[in-house]
Amino acid sequence: MVAKKRSFYDFPTPALVLDSVIVRDNIQRLADYATANGLKLRPHTKTHKMRAIAKMQLDAGAIGVTVAKVSEAEVISSPDLDVLVAYPPIGRSRAPRLATLARDRTVRVAVDSMAAIEEMSAAAQASNAVVGLLVEIDVGMGRTGVSKSSATLPLAIAIERAPNVRLDGIMIYPGHIWESIDKQDEPLRAVDSLLEQTLELWSRHGLAAAIVSGGSTPTAYQSHMVWHMTEIRPGTYIFNDMNTVRGGFCSLENCAARVIATVISDAVAGQVVIDAGLKTLSTDLCIPAKDTGYGYIVEYPEAHITRLSEEHGQVDISGCDSRPVIGERITVIPNHICPCVNLQESVWWETPNEPLTQMHVDARGKIQ
Amino acid sequence: MVAKKRSFYDFPTPALVLDSVIVRDNIQRLADYATANGLKLRPHTKTHKMRAIAKMQLDAGAIGVTVAKVSEAEVISSPDLDVLVAYPPIGRSRAPRLATLARDRTVRVAVDSMAAIEEMSAAAQASNAVVGLLVEIDVGMGRTGVSKSSATLPLAIAIERAPNVRLDGIMIYPGHIWESIDKQDEPLRAVDSLLEQTLELWSRHGLAAAIVSGGSTPTAYQSHMVWHMTEIRPGTYIFNDMNTVRGGFCSLENCAARVIATVISDAVAGQVVIDAGLKTLSTDLCIPAKDTGYGYIVEYPEAHITRLSEEHGQVDISGCDSRPVIGERITVIPNHICPCVNLQESVWWETPNEPLTQMHVDARGKIQ
Repeated sequence: MVAKKRSFYDFPTPALVLDSVIVRDNIQRLADYATANGLKLRPHTKTHKMRAIAKMQLDAGAIGVTVAKVSEAEVISSPDLDVLVAYPPIGRSRAPRLATLARDRTVRVAVDSMAAIEEMSAAAQASNAVVGLLVEIDVGMGRTGVSKSSATLPLAIAIERAPNVRLDGIMIYPGHIWESIDKQDEPLRAVDSLLEQTLELWSRHGLAAAIVSGGSTPTAYQSHMVWHMTEIRPGTYIFNDMNTVRGGFCSLENCAARVIATVISDAVAGQVVIDAGLKTLSTDLCIPAKDTGYGYIVEYPEAHITRLSEEHGQVDISGCDSRPVIGERITVIPNHICPCVNLQESVWWETPNEPLTQMHVDARGKIQ
Repeated sequence: MVAKKRSFYDFPTPALVLDSVIVRDNIQRLADYATANGLKLRPHTKTHKMRAIAKMQLDAGAIGVTVAKVSEAEVISSPDLDVLVAYPPIGRSRAPRLATLARDRTVRVAVDSMAAIEEMSAAAQASNAVVGLLVEIDVGMGRTGVSKSSATLPLAIAIERAPNVRLDGIMIYPGHIWESIDKQDEPLRAVDSLLEQTLELWSRHGLAAAIVSGGSTPTAYQSHMVWHMTEIRPGTYIFNDMNTVRGGFCSLENCAARVIATVISDAVAGQVVIDAGLKTLSTDLCIPAKDTGYGYIVEYPEAHITRLSEEHGQVDISGCDSRPVIGERITVIPNHICPCVNLQESVWWETPNEPLTQMHVDARGKIQ
């Protein structure tokens, strides 16, 4: 990515632009890695929330898609697609809506409790559908998933016995890797041994895991180290952001999504204000470097976005050689691209030598 | 607000519910204060982003509305309404779109630079409209606005001279009060003397400020201390949130907006996970109490929402007497209600003895 000349683009700001060349490159590179290592790829679509981009991932060989919420599955998946809902089917409407989807597509759901298995089985029976279940194992994040091999067994047995659900395998999410990026190998080795232990236990009870699904962009290119993993579910890799850059997982050149903002005030000495605030960028800090502000300004790498209010971004420019002027447009790479995309109604799709096109963020705001 | 019994409401979660009784009470209380103190009220609609609620505020005596972005003005304001855009009209399309609106309604815009005055004047000329301008003075937040009385003079003179713009007065925003809540009176006294100084200076040059517009919910009920203020622009007061509660500006009973979430996992000891993450609540911390987590759980006041991922909220329940169970619904009062509302496609409007109704968030995502 190269800094562009002042006042580029004609659209109103703030706005998110996707570089199609970088998006396609990010898709292909991970697809190639997966193929080379005998891994299946099931991208998490929470990052882009767009059907058109999910299609590009599928066209490049992805075996299906991953979503978090049922409403995302309803918008992003289509008949005949293989969709994994990496989220417990708990709540008044989740299991029934998933069972409805399972009538015309392969629906797989992660579970970590007996209640989830019972709700999903009952709803699948009512819809006369079959839903595949993956037992979630917590590999260190401490969020969802059972933490011991032994705790997976009663869940796997219950799935085998319950009507209209199918035991598909195991799901893990090494999301805690953000916090231990200096020792990436170690947690992955621990994951490997936990999986080994679990699969042996299941095998002794006549149970098999056809799918062992792993995830996360930071660990994506280390996935071959986890022997039993059959598929990966990275999301952020499609665009990347300052989390993945500063975490050392990619470079600025791999960042496909950029917020274009306009300088709207220079009234305070040593500062300019841009029209991108927390309703554009989100207040997410950069996990591996919390003191770097609210995003990276491509044209002014020494600038710091020190404070966001709802529609204002305060930028400390005291360390910059030149001063952005009022009306100037700048390029911000967000810290966390997922909430940023979710804040946009639409984004701009940029391809060299072609007109910009506007793309609707299909599943934006689908939180149920 | 009273904690409700387990599994209340039928709608899918997470979802935002507005208590209409509290909303109407919040509207009326501030309207009464404004009337009693001879202040005009021009609520900032960024908090609710809904035409129906703006109408309630107008019906209760508000003289007009405030918005941040032009796209909000386009959605929230209507012909014949008096709308203040508390934001510099800088950027390729802002001034022309404001000028278009000014053809059939009163549009007032805050400026803090010569560039803003020139852009607005040129656009208003092109649209054959007149736009009122308020010179923004920074009263301590260090965001937008000129910081010295003397710096307002050339701007005010330029407005008087420029075609198709009208000098309406002065705008201030005491948003920094969050950070000095233990000495509220002091900054307000400083504001008063800065305004006094500015108005005297203007008067010596034959300039008058018909409007002196102040703002912010925390300072709303101290507005009478600022002698020269003619109107106030609070936004958050309509719903309140944990910022205003923990800042000491209201009580939990004044919080009209609550996220209903479902417990989806209890796999980790001492913790439950709810289905409201940062795509529902936003990652905003509570400004006056940054160690209190990501919102307040009404039914479990000792619980702490310690971590948000996109669709998960991890809740530390080790300090709670009873443990929420899987499937149970809980009530969260968000730290910062403005980004939370902006994340919802629609909200539920609750009135005693009436069915819940769904309200669209009209200006959600309007960031341009």
